[in-house]
Amino acid sequence: MRRIFASIAIMILSLCTYIQGRPTMQSPDLILMPYPAEVQIEPGVFRLSDDFRIAVEGAVTPRLERAIVRARQRLAGRTALFFTCNEISRDGLGEGQGLVVRCERAGRLVVNEDESYRLAVSAGGIRLEARTDIGGLHGLETLLQLLQADENGFFFPAVSIQDQPRFPWRGLLIDACRHWMPVDVILHNLDAMAAAKLNVLHWHLSEDQGFRVESKLFPKLHQLGSDGLYYTQEQIREIIGIAADRGIRVVPEFDMPGHATSWFVGYPHLASAAGPFKIERRYGVMDPVMDPTKETTYEFLEAFWREMTALFPDEYVHIGGDENNGKMWNANAEIQAFKQANNLADNHALQAYFNNRLYKILTRYQKKLVGWDEILHPDMPNNSVIHSWRGTQALVEAAQKGYMSILSNGYYIDLCQSAAFHYLNDPIPAGSQMTQDERKRVLGGEAAMWSEIATKETVDSRIWPRTLAIAERLWSPAERCDVDDMYRRMERISVQLEELGLLHLKNSAMMLRRLAAGQDPEAAQNLLEWLAPVQGYYRTDHTPYTSFSPFTRMVDAAPPESLPARRFARLVDAYLEERKPGDRDALLKVMDGWESNHDALVRLIKKAPALREVEPTSAILQQLGRAGREAVSYFGKKQKPTAAWSARQKELIAAAQKPNAELLIPVAGAMEKLFNAAAQ
Amino acid sequence: MRRIFASIAIMILSLCTYIQGRPTMQSPDLILMPYPAEVQIEPGVFRLSDDFRIAVEGAVTPRLERAIVRARQRLAGRTALFFTCNEISRDGLGEGQGLVVRCERAGRLVVNEDESYRLAVSAGGIRLEARTDIGGLHGLETLLQLLQADENGFFFPAVSIQDQPRFPWRGLLIDACRHWMPVDVILHNLDAMAAAKLNVLHWHLSEDQGFRVESKLFPKLHQLGSDGLYYTQEQIREIIGIAADRGIRVVPEFDMPGHATSWFVGYPHLASAAGPFKIERRYGVMDPVMDPTKETTYEFLEAFWREMTALFPDEYVHIGGDENNGKMWNANAEIQAFKQANNLADNHALQAYFNNRLYKILTRYQKKLVGWDEILHPDMPNNSVIHSWRGTQALVEAAQKGYMSILSNGYYIDLCQSAAFHYLNDPIPAGSQMTQDERKRVLGGEAAMWSEIATKETVDSRIWPRTLAIAERLWSPAERCDVDDMYRRMERISVQLEELGLLHLKNSAMMLRRLAAGQDPEAAQNLLEWLAPVQGYYRTDHTPYTSFSPFTRMVDAAPPESLPARRFARLVDAYLEERKPGDRDALLKVMDGWESNHDALVRLIKKAPALREVEPTSAILQQLGRAGREAVSYFGKKQKPTAAWSARQKELIAAAQKPNAELLIPVAGAMEKLFNAAAQ
Repeated sequence: MRRIFASIAIMILSLCTYIQGRPTMQSPDLILMPYPAEVQIEPGVFRLSDDFRIAVEGAVTPRLERAIVRARQRLAGRTALFFTCNEISRDGLGEGQGLVVRCERAGRLVVNEDESYRLAVSAGGIRLEARTDIGGLHGLETLLQLLQADENGFFFPAVSIQDQPRFPWRGLLIDACRHWMPVDVILHNLDAMAAAKLNVLHWHLSEDQGFRVESKLFPKLHQLGSDGLYYTQEQIREIIGIAADRGIRVVPEFDMPGHATSWFVGYPHLASAAGPFKIERRYGVMDPVMDPTKETTYEFLEAFWREMTALFPDEYVHIGGDENNGKMWNANAEIQAFKQANNLADNHALQAYFNNRLYKILTRYQKKLVGWDEILHPDMPNNSVIHSWRGTQALVEAAQKGYMSILSNGYYIDLCQSAAFHYLNDPIPAGSQMTQDERKRVLGGEAAMWSEIATKETVDSRIWPRTLAIAERLWSPAERCDVDDMYRRMERISVQLEELGLLHLKNSAMMLRRLAAGQDPEAAQNLLEWLAPVQGYYRTDHTPYTSFSPFTRMVDAAPPESLPARRFARLVDAYLEERKPGDRDALLKVMDGWESNHDALVRLIKKAPALREVEPTSAILQQLGRAGREAVSYFGKKQKPTAAWSARQKELIAAAQKPNAELLIPVAGAMEKLFNAAAQ
Repeated sequence: MRRIFASIAIMILSLCTYIQGRPTMQSPDLILMPYPAEVQIEPGVFRLSDDFRIAVEGAVTPRLERAIVRARQRLAGRTALFFTCNEISRDGLGEGQGLVVRCERAGRLVVNEDESYRLAVSAGGIRLEARTDIGGLHGLETLLQLLQADENGFFFPAVSIQDQPRFPWRGLLIDACRHWMPVDVILHNLDAMAAAKLNVLHWHLSEDQGFRVESKLFPKLHQLGSDGLYYTQEQIREIIGIAADRGIRVVPEFDMPGHATSWFVGYPHLASAAGPFKIERRYGVMDPVMDPTKETTYEFLEAFWREMTALFPDEYVHIGGDENNGKMWNANAEIQAFKQANNLADNHALQAYFNNRLYKILTRYQKKLVGWDEILHPDMPNNSVIHSWRGTQALVEAAQKGYMSILSNGYYIDLCQSAAFHYLNDPIPAGSQMTQDERKRVLGGEAAMWSEIATKETVDSRIWPRTLAIAERLWSPAERCDVDDMYRRMERISVQLEELGLLHLKNSAMMLRRLAAGQDPEAAQNLLEWLAPVQGYYRTDHTPYTSFSPFTRMVDAAPPESLPARRFARLVDAYLEERKPGDRDALLKVMDGWESNHDALVRLIKKAPALREVEPTSAILQQLGRAGREAVSYFGKKQKPTAAWSARQKELIAAAQKPNAELLIPVAGAMEKLFNAAAQ
């Protein structure tokens, strides 16, 4: 499910252009994300002091109490206030004392549970009301985002908020197979998901490269299929418990019949060809696939799912079902004979037969089924959920055929695309021809964090902050698509997420220290600000990565998107529009920095060989800086650059747009504009 | 055990002065820590390439194999090399191909196990030999520290190393009670301990503020005594297993009869006064103490220790035994009667009676006992280990009486003392009068990380890098005490430790981003470089901290020791000695930075109220910068500063040496020197 991602982008970007042109609801002071459905700004503020108190009314669940304790500790952490009262009152509060939370009942962890809340802040106090405690949790997160400061201290601005999600299924997929993701990675991402009001952890737990769950029934699955890197059942129960405590459902994925090499290491009889098998270290679509024609396969899967459906309480399980290349089936005479005997026209029909058998097994265990696009087949019962990785077309088709569906196409956050790209990718694009009923079947979407080229060191930076943009797309009204405003809020909330233990901002500097091999990494840091990883599948297409490869290079330390480059492009636009000397000076300062940094980097590289691969990129950036200074010098002058000069800059831009060390120079586009304008 | 720490320091510092004066073994290119016992530098290097291979000979234990896999991945991470071979060969290697590891047998996790190794690097290959696989693990860590780089890439310098520890007990105490330390904190600290060749995790698991272990026999211990923050038995087994995999013993401490309020919440009948009890939130020495006169107490402890000794496999358990203030005993008539009836002269004798009962219980479970100083009593059998928190005098006394002992006095790393202080604190100080037999009974020492004012966010920065200095004191020959050389190596290894997941360097910047409340934290960062937390018990003595307090302020973001301040002091010394213009310019640059930063900080504070408390400190630093510039201007001139000027600077120094917001300005001493010199 790793291939189609660009085509839809262009369509969506053009669709949304007209929306961006309209005036947006500006709320310059509220850094909320996902932005609530309705926000009314009121006069006044509620001042926070060490006297701050919290009371609960209505149904007080342990989940709500724990959430209040965590929220209060985060407030104390941000404000450094020593709250004098650390209890939760059940006897109400006096005027101006603090926060009252009232929920009506415990929320259930099911699709379409009520997640709404109302939050009212005034000088006299804060009132948070929700139907369920899950709605209450969302309201607490919104309140934490409302915190502001001025010369007199911390305060909450007076507001009246009414909020509920647009889609009921707002997920994050974490692939713990291609690279192992320790318990701690999952735990702090659950906290961050709660902050972003996401409510589904889609946990990708088996793959060619690893089987990551302890199985007591079939212990060779994890013993031989994981290099010792798997979650014990107790760890899984702990994670599910903490997720539930955050209002998050956990949907496990056991990918079958393909993507299953690691199963066959311990249980080769499940495969469609003779073993032995080894854990796969490379990436891509592999041949090994389960044998769907043997009853022993279903006996195994019946027992396997009995164990796993007891371990994972959610009403849904994900069976994968993607990217079976069919080669092993084609090469197996018995399987071909089975197809003929059963009137199965092709491999897709054979896989549908397999899926149907799975469906029956899972139904016996009271589970509903999610699978990738490929499971869509006339024989698939339509209480299943189709998970689209190939495009919104599949989503529409599924909805029209009566299936529920969720979208991940356009939300593949491992591909290092921009937050704007993901933000404008709507499960139900504006202008969609779907009926009301069909629209209702689109349950939402999931950011998908595949981990071929992400490790526990880098995974947070690939998920955050861009997943905030996806979270807003899935929560907030469709009309909210002002990209600049999104970036402004995303950068602020990104810093706030650090209090939850995420490494998304911290680890880049750490990785640069390692690359600098004992020297000052500053020159590498300066360079990295202006670089971004190449997007899409370029990396795995061009480098024979395995699970042993180092993911510690500059491209791994680079955030997926260079926000300085984005701001620089805006500055170039502004300068070309208005020619303000201040903007010119700001441009020159940046470009001078590119020029002077190169020599420092070259010195650093002399004793830091792992940085050598970015020397050509740095040299190009130096040349861009130099040429940029020349370009600026032409503005306001009669004399224009020569054709030779322009030709040289064209070559330079082409060089900057070519990946080197799997990195790009994202200011290339802005510099091209500058050069072209200088030449006119 | 939190009080005596300064007196010994002065003695040790003076003892070591003469050693520092002697010429030291300079090995300018080898950044090894703890430094090996014998190092012979040879000509040549072994160049690392993607062809690097690893082979094993002799006894190949799973522990060794896993350590090799981890070491190779760390090498790949640092060098960004894509190793073509990711297997471990058992058929030897060709010339120049790589590393051969030979161990004779699996090491046992007992005191005095053989931990030695020999490491020989030449252009033709690397050979690591050890009696036990634990020695092999140490050798791998040394090899990783040997990695160097030049213009031609990465290499290991040719060396011949013979190494073994000076002391067999080299520990780190982590207090998981005053603040909860999640599993992940323990796990990455175990990796760092292994890198520092420490071999004992002393896990402080029960306290007034929390009981942190799941007890299946007495579930109210963790259910009512921990706020839900405890280690499950499976987590404990996981941690013990990973520790064993690193060659690290795990010694649990259940502190008794005092420091036990959290036990009494669920089991008040254990206490020496009537309940009910609540989890303690404050810090200090509390009154609640077990009742040592009731048989029901021992029945409980018999069962309790039966459960816990089965859970923790090490031959030692730690019973605490410290800081019982005796108040509850004094107030309890029955306990007084018991003392009289049993001829127990005082509370110390009563506690000795209690300890003796414990001793018998633990002996039945084949455990030996460790306890703090206070357990030393004629009735205590001398196969026990005395853990000295009050001074080396107790250590000497214990050794003379035939007890084994370990030292933590002088190693209290929560007190934010300098690495130099800890480094020069020797369990057997030079000039000690102990006999050879007595010396042998000094098993080593433990860095003690108490957590009253440390949280999971800050604990790594309190442990590392300074614990490297303690690790070297306990591992390397006593003669190695060149402080400058230690700092030089410590700073480099500190960065290397980050690859193990430690947050000790990363989190300061994160905390500053939070303090900056959405603004650029640069001015706070600039200030923080020159500040250090006040040392010793000042913080808890002056602020009524509780476990709910925020530990997110500048003092918490500050590293325990300002290394820039240390370098600045050296620069002042150099300048005063030689008056080089280059040094003067360097001083002026720093001092100008102090001056100009203040205004930026004041602007930042306007919207970052949690930073307001450091404004006075910043103002003093600004004045120091200004006065420093004036001072420098007097050098080489006839005109000397006025007495009024000198008096003003004296006041300024006094102000800088007074804690503000629990922070000090550690350049004050150097500035005083500069002012004095200017006035002469």
